Amino acid sequence: MPSRYLSFRCSVPWLILSLQALFLLGFFFCFPDAGDIYSPYDLYSEFQDVSHMVIFGFGFFLVVLRRYGFSSAGLNFLLIVLGVQCSVLVEDLLVLLRVQESETGIRSLAKAVVSMTAVAISTGAVLGKANPVQLIVMSLVEIIIFCVSRCINRTFLEVPWWERVTLMHVHLFGAYFGVAVTSCFPEPPPGLDKNRSTPKSDLFSMLGTVFVWVFWPSFNSILLYFKKTAVLNTYFALAVSAVAAFMLSALTSKDGKFRMAHIHSAVLAGGVTISYTAASIQHPWIAMILGLLGSVITILGSHCLQRCFNPAFKLHDTSGVHFTFGLPAVLGAVAAVVLSVVEVGIDTQWNNLSSLGYMIFVDVGAFCQTISTALITGLITGLILNIKLLKTVHVSKYFDDQFYWEFPHLSVGF
Amino acid sequence: MPSRYLSFRCSVPWLILSLQALFLLGFFFCFPDAGDIYSPYDLYSEFQDVSHMVIFGFGFFLVVLRRYGFSSAGLNFLLIVLGVQCSVLVEDLLVLLRVQESETGIRSLAKAVVSMTAVAISTGAVLGKANPVQLIVMSLVEIIIFCVSRCINRTFLEVPWWERVTLMHVHLFGAYFGVAVTSCFPEPPPGLDKNRSTPKSDLFSMLGTVFVWVFWPSFNSILLYFKKTAVLNTYFALAVSAVAAFMLSALTSKDGKFRMAHIHSAVLAGGVTISYTAASIQHPWIAMILGLLGSVITILGSHCLQRCFNPAFKLHDTSGVHFTFGLPAVLGAVAAVVLSVVEVGIDTQWNNLSSLGYMIFVDVGAFCQTISTALITGLITGLILNIKLLKTVHVSKYFDDQFYWEFPHLSVGF
Amino acid sequence: MPSRYLSFRCSVPWLILSLQALFLLGFFFCFPDAGDIYSPYDLYSEFQDVSHMVIFGFGFFLVVLRRYGFSSAGLNFLLIVLGVQCSVLVEDLLVLLRVQESETGIRSLAKAVVSMTAVAISTGAVLGKANPVQLIVMSLVEIIIFCVSRCINRTFLEVPWWERVTLMHVHLFGAYFGVAVTSCFPEPPPGLDKNRSTPKSDLFSMLGTVFVWVFWPSFNSILLYFKKTAVLNTYFALAVSAVAAFMLSALTSKDGKFRMAHIHSAVLAGGVTISYTAASIQHPWIAMILGLLGSVITILGSHCLQRCFNPAFKLHDTSGVHFTFGLPAVLGAVAAVVLSVVEVGIDTQWNNLSSLGYMIFVDVGAFCQTISTALITGLITGLILNIKLLKTVHVSKYFDDQFYWEFPHLSVGF
Repeated sequence: MPSRYLSFRCSVPWLILSLQALFLLGFFFCFPDAGDIYSPYDLYSEFQDVSHMVIFGFGFFLVVLRRYGFSSAGLNFLLIVLGVQCSVLVEDLLVLLRVQESETGIRSLAKAVVSMTAVAISTGAVLGKANPVQLIVMSLVEIIIFCVSRCINRTFLEVPWWERVTLMHVHLFGAYFGVAVTSCFPEPPPGLDKNRSTPKSDLFSMLGTVFVWVFWPSFNSILLYFKKTAVLNTYFALAVSAVAAFMLSALTSKDGKFRMAHIHSAVLAGGVTISYTAASIQHPWIAMILGLLGSVITILGSHCLQRCFNPAFKLHDTSGVHFTFGLPAVLGAVAAVVLSVVEVGIDTQWNNLSSLGYMIFVDVGAFCQTISTALITGLITGLILNIKLLKTVHVSKYFDDQFYWEFPHLSVGF
Repeated sequence: MPSRYLSFRCSVPWLILSLQALFLLGFFFCFPDAGDIYSPYDLYSEFQDVSHMVIFGFGFFLVVLRRYGFSSAGLNFLLIVLGVQCSVLVEDLLVLLRVQESETGIRSLAKAVVSMTAVAISTGAVLGKANPVQLIVMSLVEIIIFCVSRCINRTFLEVPWWERVTLMHVHLFGAYFGVAVTSCFPEPPPGLDKNRSTPKSDLFSMLGTVFVWVFWPSFNSILLYFKKTAVLNTYFALAVSAVAAFMLSALTSKDGKFRMAHIHSAVLAGGVTISYTAASIQHPWIAMILGLLGSVITILGSHCLQRCFNPAFKLHDTSGVHFTFGLPAVLGAVAAVVLSVVEVGIDTQWNNLSSLGYMIFVDVGAFCQTISTALITGLITGLILNIKLLKTVHVSKYFDDQFYWEFPHLSVGF
Repeated sequence: MPSRYLSFRCSVPWLILSLQALFLLGFFFCFPDAGDIYSPYDLYSEFQDVSHMVIFGFGFFLVVLRRYGFSSAGLNFLLIVLGVQCSVLVEDLLVLLRVQESETGIRSLAKAVVSMTAVAISTGAVLGKANPVQLIVMSLVEIIIFCVSRCINRTFLEVPWWERVTLMHVHLFGAYFGVAVTSCFPEPPPGLDKNRSTPKSDLFSMLGTVFVWVFWPSFNSILLYFKKTAVLNTYFALAVSAVAAFMLSALTSKDGKFRMAHIHSAVLAGGVTISYTAASIQHPWIAMILGLLGSVITILGSHCLQRCFNPAFKLHDTSGVHFTFGLPAVLGAVAAVVLSVVEVGIDTQWNNLSSLGYMIFVDVGAFCQTISTALITGLITGLILNIKLLKTVHVSKYFDDQFYWEFPHLSVGF
């Protein structure tokens, strides 16, 4: 193996350059003029929140590894700004192909930023193992497939409530796509020291987590017309899941101490779980129970997956996106079906069972389509990413900023 | 003393679980449906600011101790999310008891978050000395008593301007409750090394302070109908108090150097001082002078209290909430009385002295009731917290994350 | 040289005190009553963003030096809060002199905060070399001259579009004023160790950079009536410049690694470049190309300036404001002229050449007036700052918090 095999000089910049040129051409031909754009300006404040959450919150949420802080925050930033442009273009292309209605302006941008959450989540699964070229390829493939998957849900399954529900599959898709991709990467050796956090990196990660937590109500309500209910339900679900996170962390650890990794994962579980139903739940206590269950499934999942599932499948999920985002999203999808069945059933006094059955079929169909698309395309993407051309990183070089960033500093590392 | 006496496994999780179950039941029975809620949605942006300020700002504001970063930010988070639910329920209960009008939705949530500032402030006084069980008990007792105290002010003293003025006693109540509680804890030994900050922890604390500073205008204006005046007055008061903080810090230290602890305290003094009068001051220069006086009283107070008052009463106020929030709040309350007397006096040409006297009586009464309730209940709470059942922390174990958080890291500490 | 020559006890506090007293008097006599103020309250959310960006974003953006974190964040805070008051007063004075229309309330405050960006930028150029007294004098002189320069542009050159365009010269003015001032300071010795960053300080700086990035659309749109176009164009320009920053950083460094300093500078270039034209560009792809060019000029500029220009002129530009803000602003100004000429030319079918010529004359005139005022007054200010009275710092004491902040900590430094 030559010593310079990790030089990305001939790949990274040219890849980015050609992508950016492509996007520019795309915007030149497709994107409507700024002057033509109709969009309610009052979305701006929420858009700002979501943009902050995705770029800053997720970026610093990922700063957990002791020697990987620059890449966590920096590469997340790069992927988001690349992916947002790509997502806007793909949406625009779908409009041209007449499979969806045109939506432009800040609304279109907001949809793109929300979609990019899937990429931010998947990045967490391969954090420290994929090089920048692999990450860029992965994120573009993922965002395109996510848009197509949403389009299938909308067109063939005729999922109601327009955009929102299809968009809220973003956590599910991101988590299982990430898990499938990471399953194609070799596991790091067990004694690797760099695969840990320090109190300092944990505090930075806490900083990012709090940002994601605070802005989550904006995230869940941004594309709705009646935002109040979604905001309230999301806030209560988040509050209960944060409380439950501390409780369960103390319960499952030795001596009743809190574990920072649990807190990071579980405080967000409520937001993920409630994402499908934030707008339709009529009683705050239902939202609170969902938040509680989300936290429970995350902490239990973190123990089960890390002890049984991951070793069995030789998976290594760096920031635990499977239990942080995947399991609560599954729970949320199930809860959405149950709640809507109960609600419609009570409304129709359980007379119109065929309509109920169709509703269940549509919801479950959309869920299965999303998760299977995520897993299959994730696996394929993972296999593609591991071809030699993309300069896979050797396991001994995992989790290290040094190979991607220049360090003029005297002492390297966190 | 057994070596495991600090295991919270049998207390912390069960305490949290039972509280959360209680809150869930409360929400099930009391809280109106999300659909019924009337509330102006346009409050959302300010609510977001205040939520960010209380959870993120105060959380990181408290990250001053070298080995207590996780607990400062993490436990503050836990207390806020627990307390917000409790506060919403207590307010709801007071509505059921017909002692206040119903207010729900984001407005009710905003009131709860504003009230929680009292808890965040009190936490600062016992920072590093109370264990999680003590903190949870303290914050619930405090938030309930604060709601009752507000209710007394509103019902018996008929404080005008509805909610706002009674809510703005939050700094006064929080600071003196915290001081009374901390007076029941034994003092840390003078040579304790962990009772210090590092440049790194000071920078994190600076980060939190700036967040609190920036969002303070939202905090002071959130429950008002005409927000503009409050925003402008608060901004000017904060600006002047920040300037004065640097000036006084250089003046009172050796060699004219700045001291970070002074800056942390005094930049916020203006916001506290102006909180009572932000909406009613008609000339920015009055707000500016109040900001200046707030900063002066904070820095002078920090010298006097730390040298004379605290040793005399064997008090140890970890983050100096007495002079950061207590003294400026007293100043603000006095200023509010003086300003409203002058304003009404000029309006009535000093003819209607009995009405003036009644106004002073109400304002001073509300102030005295709040501060005495805070001190008395704080003392009682402090005594309760130090019973053996709650596993008080030994002074040698003060200010250390290690007893509450698992550290899988190689090197512990900041 | 006596060992105590760095004691600022007799200068810093009294300077700040007298300034603050002056401002208070100014507000007492000049500033209209809060009650009289007309201003659209809906500006508040954007004002909050800009205030956050200037105080927090720029403050932490400057935390790059290993031993200068407190001063970077702290003194930036002091300068902003002092300067905002000064700027409001100067604007008010200009209204009294009848050279501009009155604008008060949040709008006036927003203008003041936007203007202060110039000071934040200039501070970056002399970071670590100027003592607090010099910084305060510099920032007050700069903000006054900037207001006067804007007034000249508005009155004599009759620059259209009212406030906005003249305000957007803020980056140009700030950068070249800073460069001129720093040229009067002696260069630090080449082997100085403190003149470097650490991974930790770089991460804090990244934190600030992301804040500036996220809030930039608010900055570019705050004083406009139709904000949508400006927000979208700015977002796209910023996104492309962030992508290009990573691309160019990998391209120009050894082994294709990213360099954090490049990322810090170049991700912001798009926002600076687009600032003149954000509201008038009708096609997002033009904004994107401007963002790309901004990034290119910043990275190329950073190589050229640091190797050729700076050594030739014996300049030392600590955080590289010349290429981070100066060059993109020049590019943006040129682009604004070209774009408006093309637009008007197409509209009039190139018939009305004299009107075109006049337009070019006005734009180029305003640009030349601003840049030459900045350079000349910057040089004069730099010379004034280096008189003995202001206690210039010896080069061996550059870049060190220790001389301005008390360190009760055991170990000093980052």
